[in-house]
Order: sequence, then structure tokens, then C-alpha cells
Amino acid sequence: MLNADQWFTEVDDANASAFGLKGRRVHAEQTPFQHIEIYETERWGNLMVIDGCTMVSTRDNFFYHEMMSHPVLATHPAPKRVLIIGGGDCGTLREVLRHPTVESATQIDIDERVTRLSEQYFPELCSANDDPRATIAFDDGIAYIRDAAPGSLDVIIVDSTDPVGPAEGLFNVAFYQNCRRALADDGLFIQQSESPLLHGPIFKAMADAMRDAGFASTTPLFFPQPIYPSGWWSATIAAGHPVLPAPRPEACKPFAETLQYYSAETHQAALAVPPLVKRLLSSG
Amino acid sequence: MLNADQWFTEVDDANASAFGLKGRRVHAEQTPFQHIEIYETERWGNLMVIDGCTMVSTRDNFFYHEMMSHPVLATHPAPKRVLIIGGGDCGTLREVLRHPTVESATQIDIDERVTRLSEQYFPELCSANDDPRATIAFDDGIAYIRDAAPGSLDVIIVDSTDPVGPAEGLFNVAFYQNCRRALADDGLFIQQSESPLLHGPIFKAMADAMRDAGFASTTPLFFPQPIYPSGWWSATIAAGHPVLPAPRPEACKPFAETLQYYSAETHQAALAVPPLVKRLLSSG
Repeated sequence: MLNADQWFTEVDDANASAFGLKGRRVHAEQTPFQHIEIYETERWGNLMVIDGCTMVSTRDNFFYHEMMSHPVLATHPAPKRVLIIGGGDCGTLREVLRHPTVESATQIDIDERVTRLSEQYFPELCSANDDPRATIAFDDGIAYIRDAAPGSLDVIIVDSTDPVGPAEGLFNVAFYQNCRRALADDGLFIQQSESPLLHGPIFKAMADAMRDAGFASTTPLFFPQPIYPSGWWSATIAAGHPVLPAPRPEACKPFAETLQYYSAETHQAALAVPPLVKRLLSSG
Repeated sequence: MLNADQWFTEVDDANASAFGLKGRRVHAEQTPFQHIEIYETERWGNLMVIDGCTMVSTRDNFFYHEMMSHPVLATHPAPKRVLIIGGGDCGTLREVLRHPTVESATQIDIDERVTRLSEQYFPELCSANDDPRATIAFDDGIAYIRDAAPGSLDVIIVDSTDPVGPAEGLFNVAFYQNCRRALADDGLFIQQSESPLLHGPIFKAMADAMRDAGFASTTPLFFPQPIYPSGWWSATIAAGHPVLPAPRPEACKPFAETLQYYSAETHQAALAVPPLVKRLLSSG
């Protein structure tokens, strides 16, 4: 029994499960796009909640941010032009900019308030925002990618909320087709793809839609993410090539001491597809 | 806000986090050793709770039971004599007995009520209990291993509750010394070792104590376990050899179709030690 005055609790209705962190709410606002709350928790640092779902905690965001950026950047042979759609907390941007090959990294989140609150409550995630290679814009990522010049990007990272509300349009064939067109021939696309245990149908539908949009291969990655439902999360890489290039994790060597989860070993480990997921992906 | 009439909620006080499953309690009893509850949940099947901590759910126990048994059995060159300490729900025993090399598997849980309730609420986990190779005893595992003949076991699996209450004596040098003595020279020991994110000091203390007890190497394994705190769990293998033999996951080929998480790939993946854990283990 968790007292609502002392706990934030996220209920995953479809799975009849819940996750809670003890703390007090220090901010809440309704933006034009979504409802954002900030909690100061007892043991997880600060916590950002959007539309009732945990987004980022100080304590455990490294899993997600490292795994949304380094595997894909260490797979592309020479990533120079990177686009982040969503990612308003700036944690993925910070990781992307650790790569010296990156010449430009553009972050397009529809909601400026996410970034302003992150600057206030997660300043460590925003530490690269002044990097001259960074562009931070507040706009509709769906329109942005529709209008992007063909072949103008090396890597697209979709770091969005779940496929309901403002992020819904980031999970369909039309969006993926536009991303495919905006990428160079050897470009790579990655998107967070929910919990393979709890959200299997979404996970599979995303991979199917990516291939329907013309990507020749989809490659899932698996990693822990304690504050998300089940604690077991995934991302999916889509590529124009039928087989991904071999990882070159040595690309992350120059900043290895900053990493908490990503390494050559965990990169390889994240690529292991458990039998239950293989069966899910090959089901009709 | 989770209504106690409709939810079971486990609070990890030290980490000020909580995990809940919606359902109704259908059984509760105080045994001579611990307090056991059974819940019928809405979406996770049945749930066993001991002393307020989630132990087993129908939906997700495969992660734990597969990873407590197959990696260690597929690393030992020819496991014949297996001892399980704890494991009263019989799920680990079932997985161990899938291995045709195993000639005897003995399960020693101190609390017969765990097994009787598992027979009633998790009958699928007890499906191998009548295997002629199985011995199910209800006794003190600490005394059992102290009195075991030297060199009489190939694999010891400690599938216990957390290091408080009846399981406390399963987490110290004296116990590990007795296990080492009971194992043959090429024997392997494995024990669940908590969440590497949330319970780092216990995780490290266990590995240190295993080496203090004379084991030449300790090797952690990492895997998802959604109903346990953080959803990211570990086990630690201890061995008399300084380096573990290479895995031979083909040992699990004959029953691969029964497996949901374990495979040659996830075995290798589980061995990847993230940087934060390397730093933890090498700290003073």
C-alpha cells in the first residue's frame, strides 16, 4: 500500500503491474502536448514523469541513454550527421556528442518544456547542449523528417515516449519511409521498442512496419531499464542492408571511463535474441 | 495509489522502490520458517510471496529457473550429481532434470510448505518431481552440506531467498567452504546474487566470500527478472579452476524447444560484465 503523498506509482494497466519510487512531487505542469511531473525521490535522484509514465531518473538513465546511442553509432562505419527525434531530456544527445566522428547532432523534440525542466532537474544530461555541433530545436519530428533532404543523415535515433499521445505518429510505415528516404544508403535508424516481455505485439509490429517501409533488416537490442515496466527494455535498429556491419565498439574507447553499461561485451550481449523473442518475431 | 485489497506490493525499503501486481490473495500461512502468501494475479498467473518478497510468478519464472540451471550445467563438462539448496518451488529441479547427463538431483529446502504450495499453485514447475533421478528432502541445507561426503557433487545450486531470515547462513565463508569441500575438483557452484544495481554491496561481498572460501574464480551472470527489484538480476558461479571451461550450450539442444530465455547466445550474453559492475568488483 503506497501512500500517494509519499510515492509516485506508475500502473501498466494492460499488464496489471505497477512500479513505484518514494519521493515528493516538486513540479507539475500541463504543456500544450503532455502532462509533465518532476519528483525528488529518496534513492533514485530526480524523476521525470510524462503522462503518468516514468521517463528518466538520475540513478538509472544511463542504461537507456547509452544503449540508444553507442550501439548504433558503433555500428555505422562513420557516423557524421545524427538526428534525434524526441530525446528532450538531452541525455541521448550528450552520449551522441561523445563520438568524435559526429559533425552535427540535431535534437527535435516537440515539447520545449521537457528540455527546460531537464536543464533544471537533470543538468548533467544537458552538459553537452552548448557543444557547437549540437542543434536543439522544438518542432514536430514527423514534419521535420518528411521535409528532410534525401540521403542527408547517417543515423536517426527515435527517443520517444510510448506509441500513444504525441508520439503515436512515430510508430508507423509512413514515418519509417520518410526516415529511410532521409538516410544515406548506409544510414542506420534506431527506435526504443518497449518491453519484449510485456509489449510483444508492439515490439513485433514496429519491426514489421520498418520492413514494410523498405528497411532490409531489423535488429533488436535488449538491455535493463529498471524504472520502465518489467525492467527489461529493447530498441530496434533498422538498416538498408540485409545484415548489419560488424560492431566496432572501439569507437567508444576514447570515452570508456564515462560509460556505466555500454562496452564491447555488453554491445554483443544486447544482440542476443532469446528464444521467446525469436518465436514472437517469426510468428504470423 | 494501489489499493491493498486489489494489489500485492513489495517495497524495497533500502532502495525506496516498489513493485506491484494486481490480484487477490488466495492463501496465507506462517510456517515454522517464514510467512508464505499466494496471489492469483490478473496478468501474471499465480504469485508466491515469502516474507513480503516476490518469489515466483507463473509468467516470468522462466528467466530465473533457466538461468540458475542451464548456464552452470552447460559449463560443467559432465554434470551427474546435482544438489539444489532451497529451490522448494521445484522449478530449478525441473530444469536440471532436463539434462540427460544428470544421474541424481537432490533438492533440500528447509520448508516443506513451499513445495506443497508449489504443487498446488505451480504444478507445471513440479512436473519432474516424480523423476526417478530426483530426491526431494526437507531439511537444513547448511547442515546437509556440512555433512556431505567430500568430492561427492558435481554442481551445487543455491536457489534461496534473500540473505535475511532462514537463508542468512547461505551467504558466508563457512557455508562456501563446506560447498567447496563437497564438490569434486571440477565441480561448480552457483548462487543467486541479487540485483547488481540495487544490491551492489551484497553482490560484491558474496563473490569476495566465495574466493575467501577457496574458490579460485567467481563469474557473474546477468539476466532479466521482472518481478524482482529493478528487474535486473544476477547469479554468481564459483569454481575451483581460475578460468571457467568454455560453455557447451549444445548440451541444451535436446530440449531447446522448452526454453524461453536460455540459448547459446543468451548464455554468452549473460557473461558480459558491464563497466559499472567491473568497477564494483574491483573496488577495495
